[in-house]
Amino acid sequence: MKIVLLGSTGSIGTNACSCIRRFPDRFSLVAVAANRNADTALAQVREFGCRAVCIGAEALAPEVRKSLPPGVRLFAGEAGLEALVNETDFDVLLNALVGAVGLRATVAALKRNKCVALANKESLVVGGEYITSLLNRGMGQLIPIDSEHSAIQQCLAGEDVSSVESIILTASGGPFRELPLDKMASVTPAQALNHPTWVMGRKITIDSATLVNKGFEVIEAHHLFAMSYDRLRVVIHPQSIVHSLVEFHDGAVMAQLGVPDMELPIQYALSFPKRLELRSKRLNLADIGTLTFYEPDYRRFPCLKLCLDAGRTGRTAPVVLNAANEIAVAAFLEGRIRFGQIAETIEAALSGHTPLAVDGLEVIEEVDKKTRKSVEKALENA
Amino acid sequence: MKIVLLGSTGSIGTNACSCIRRFPDRFSLVAVAANRNADTALAQVREFGCRAVCIGAEALAPEVRKSLPPGVRLFAGEAGLEALVNETDFDVLLNALVGAVGLRATVAALKRNKCVALANKESLVVGGEYITSLLNRGMGQLIPIDSEHSAIQQCLAGEDVSSVESIILTASGGPFRELPLDKMASVTPAQALNHPTWVMGRKITIDSATLVNKGFEVIEAHHLFAMSYDRLRVVIHPQSIVHSLVEFHDGAVMAQLGVPDMELPIQYALSFPKRLELRSKRLNLADIGTLTFYEPDYRRFPCLKLCLDAGRTGRTAPVVLNAANEIAVAAFLEGRIRFGQIAETIEAALSGHTPLAVDGLEVIEEVDKKTRKSVEKALENA
Repeated sequence: MKIVLLGSTGSIGTNACSCIRRFPDRFSLVAVAANRNADTALAQVREFGCRAVCIGAEALAPEVRKSLPPGVRLFAGEAGLEALVNETDFDVLLNALVGAVGLRATVAALKRNKCVALANKESLVVGGEYITSLLNRGMGQLIPIDSEHSAIQQCLAGEDVSSVESIILTASGGPFRELPLDKMASVTPAQALNHPTWVMGRKITIDSATLVNKGFEVIEAHHLFAMSYDRLRVVIHPQSIVHSLVEFHDGAVMAQLGVPDMELPIQYALSFPKRLELRSKRLNLADIGTLTFYEPDYRRFPCLKLCLDAGRTGRTAPVVLNAANEIAVAAFLEGRIRFGQIAETIEAALSGHTPLAVDGLEVIEEVDKKTRKSVEKALENA
Repeated sequence: MKIVLLGSTGSIGTNACSCIRRFPDRFSLVAVAANRNADTALAQVREFGCRAVCIGAEALAPEVRKSLPPGVRLFAGEAGLEALVNETDFDVLLNALVGAVGLRATVAALKRNKCVALANKESLVVGGEYITSLLNRGMGQLIPIDSEHSAIQQCLAGEDVSSVESIILTASGGPFRELPLDKMASVTPAQALNHPTWVMGRKITIDSATLVNKGFEVIEAHHLFAMSYDRLRVVIHPQSIVHSLVEFHDGAVMAQLGVPDMELPIQYALSFPKRLELRSKRLNLADIGTLTFYEPDYRRFPCLKLCLDAGRTGRTAPVVLNAANEIAVAAFLEGRIRFGQIAETIEAALSGHTPLAVDGLEVIEEVDKKTRKSVEKALENA
């Protein structure tokens, strides 16, 4: 199986490389894309004998060209990324890009009727309706990599989707699940970056503290599994052992459990619907002892509610949600706004927006750009 | 689908009737068998329009014959039960008999190449090797009804059995999971009959307190899922919400959860591999809040160890295990022996037995009879 790996030098990307390395007879890495980490990308090209590489930071391209093994195509920048997807021979696109640039790559691959193993959140959060329209026209296939969506996919194996009653996504609750409510508004970036169970990048760690990340996952699940929002639920589960659950119309609840580790969902996405051996750390329930679950409190996590509302509204509302959140999180990390203002910023942006129908990428990109600009301006004036 | 229901007036049997009643277009009850509760059996015959009925207590047969609707065949006694299975036209035998009589019915149905939905423990505990030899010769099919085995079956849906690494059966731990160890030997029948999560018959409730029931389930799982004993584990889970789990060779653990209720596994066995709607009580993890798990302590539950050892020994060892346990439990309920002597009785019986190869039902029945006799005698002399 020929794999194109976008975001090859990040945490998902290097994990994917480990998986490909373990099964050389089954997987072949034909192209990689990285943003700035050209050295690692070049090492991957050499190790796996890739036929193409894309460097996001165009300024680095001339330097990279000098070190390129003969016969390897070099692409650069956002346009280069799309060209790589369009001009490379492959079976599966593993999209681990961060940000809206990932959406274009997903769409390009689906339009070529390819399978996309998806770790890029933006593809479905902002582009979900458009991507669904492509899938419904018979273009390509999506397989999730997120641990929650992978869990759901595993729970659905061998089941009839029409017998699903609800999908329950688990959320760790982040570092503030037990903080007194009146302290929530003023937590610091350092506190917010201290996630209890998963080690991740800065942006997604803040999104986990606000539960925006979980709200995004609900929107993704809505699109991935064609599930209406009233059948999607979130339960706080601080231990992050139960990765998600599916309830069926006979009352049975299937769950996927495991130690928090991205290796498994990455490998499952590549081996789906089969399972390949993985000598990772094994779950021992007796060692863990206790699993707890409780309802999320919307007063504590107003962003979760905003996400679900934006998802239900649909059209370009999730685009505004995503853009406003990105600007707000950056401002919070820079110390320009307080934690509580992340939700306020998103809410203001959403309430000032009239959602538009999504018939292509252009409207998404336009609303995205406009929202970022107006949110930045509002924060400057505040 | 034509169903023969053995043990139709018990708890599993009446639950099965509810299920059949809910889906009249899908299921048809063609025959029932009860031991002594002839009135209920006759009411079932009338309601479902059965073509045959078997009454275990032969003395009741003449009375039953008088009330029988025209054209309904009447069978009686153990031989009648086998004749009913052999001479009725059906698709699925739902075997909810209690005791060794259930084994003959299972074997008869498999030999006719029928599907057996199995709630009768003895079929696999004492007859597992023989039944496996029948299945391996292409005769019939087994579907479990026990909530634990049903959970495992559900976890295996859509999965490749060769990718299973281990099966983890959950056990509530019964009423004595936290009793000080030095008090275990002398608990009373009343204490032992007070099961924390499941309401069941007296014999099986004592078997749950000793964990013999769980040991039996491990032996059943060994045969049902062709899983070696070193891949079968037991974990104590007092809430009985996670009904069992399967660990795969990629580290993923699939689990089936639900409120403790036999309706679901009964219906699943009849609808397998599909799921039919069931308006039962729904699981709400946030309401339950906490799930706990720990390793079983063999000092507390010596019977569990004896069961696993008898299972590993195989051949007629599980026959001795089952017979000795049955006699010991009866003696305990009658106040003739202390709780701690149940394990001692089983251990003595097993250590005095040289296991024989199982090539048919005769050797099983002979060892069973001999064990009961010698255990009774030993208890009398004690």
